[in-house]
Amino acid sequence: MSTHPRTFEFRPIGVVHTPFDDSDEAPRQGGSEADRGTVVLAEEYTAGIVGLEPGTELDVIWVADRADRDVLEARGRGVFTTRSPARPNPICVTRCTVRAISDDRRRIDLVGVDMLDESPVLDLKAPIH
Amino acid sequence: MSTHPRTFEFRPIGVVHTPFDDSDEAPRQGGSEADRGTVVLAEEYTAGIVGLEPGTELDVIWVADRADRDVLEARGRGVFTTRSPARPNPICVTRCTVRAISDDRRRIDLVGVDMLDESPVLDLKAPIH
Repeated sequence: MSTHPRTFEFRPIGVVHTPFDDSDEAPRQGGSEADRGTVVLAEEYTAGIVGLEPGTELDVIWVADRADRDVLEARGRGVFTTRSPARPNPICVTRCTVRAISDDRRRIDLVGVDMLDESPVLDLKAPIH
Repeated sequence: MSTHPRTFEFRPIGVVHTPFDDSDEAPRQGGSEADRGTVVLAEEYTAGIVGLEPGTELDVIWVADRADRDVLEARGRGVFTTRSPARPNPICVTRCTVRAISDDRRRIDLVGVDMLDESPVLDLKAPIH
């Protein structure tokens, strides 16, 4: 058996607020200057953004918690060849740009969001260029 | 309360075999032609790579299952401004290139790996360019 039988559990570090209430409204991918949102971090994780600067890019790792986890193929293509949120483990990655950070480090204002409102955030990362 | 109290559970779709047995051996980031590895998919997920072509890039979403999950800052920087595997939810993203795919779609040979051997794989995605 070369695959892992165990599962992994992750606790969100925060949540992202966006203008998109359902998937018909959300852009297909992020990156648009017009699409603004805010990550709100749980207080215990704010030390994790020490050094984060407005104007820099940030990869937001989030859960498409309303996506269908039972889809493996759509329109003749495997989901692992796409970025559709519908997939067995609906973990999404959106490259955003930081606009502002609140003094208490709880709120990170972003441009380029494509998440549904209230999506759970698992991680933030510096992009590779 | 604007953060999600619930946790999310993910079951690996497979595992990645690489030459790296500990983090001193693994490259800091992927992308090197010299670093070859293989994702072995669990049989029930092979339909998810229909249409995947050798020569294309693929983002591998994997768990750094041996990383320290209690780190928030290192060398004066928050972990969310880095790509270190040590972070509360050690979900990593490595951009690889597909070399070959086995006929049964179980094995995807890759270049550019940086994972430790036997790391669990949660997802595969087409990169955004």
